[in-house]
Amino acid sequence: MYFSYPRDFKERELAPGIVTKLVWGERIMLSHATFQPNSTIPTHGHPQEQTGIVIEGELDLTIGSETRRCRKGDAFTIPGGVEHSAVSGNSVTVVLDTFSPPREDYM
Amino acid sequence: MYFSYPRDFKERELAPGIVTKLVWGERIMLSHATFQPNSTIPTHGHPQEQTGIVIEGELDLTIGSETRRCRKGDAFTIPGGVEHSAVSGNSVTVVLDTFSPPREDYM
Repeated sequence: MYFSYPRDFKERELAPGIVTKLVWGERIMLSHATFQPNSTIPTHGHPQEQTGIVIEGELDLTIGSETRRCRKGDAFTIPGGVEHSAVSGNSVTVVLDTFSPPREDYM
Repeated sequence: MYFSYPRDFKERELAPGIVTKLVWGERIMLSHATFQPNSTIPTHGHPQEQTGIVIEGELDLTIGSETRRCRKGDAFTIPGGVEHSAVSGNSVTVVLDTFSPPREDYM
């Protein structure tokens, strides 16, 4: 109930080359996403707040009208409703995203 | 406003040998914690839900009356109010914790 292992996570392909593993409680959903090099999440938005941190590799992240290159250890907060997109760099990139409340469309 | 870099994170010593870097939005707080080997977070609880994942190393985590060894990629969810404690293994351990709502005592 309290502990989850990668084999138990729900897996979801977010876009070509981008697979995430999901685990959630009542208020928070963790999304441990692996991007193959040069993979794109198209512009989208959702009502949930999203906060994340780059674990490995790098990501060009656009939030609203602002684009920054995020590297290992860099974090971001996307308020609910703000459109965003992402493109991974030339190496495999791992991003830990969180959503609150959890995204029902990912369950 | 959307992007945060490690130099901007709020740093906090959670216990001897355990330092975390904090970043938060309105609904989620990320806590990127580094444990020196064999460091302990004593038993405690808080009303916020806590969900986390081990990024590096290993951690003996006790939630309620259940203890498990969590390794890289293992995740956990601690409902609000449930007591928990943690002891890191023999190597430096990195854990990404999240709290919802954000912990005001950490701001």
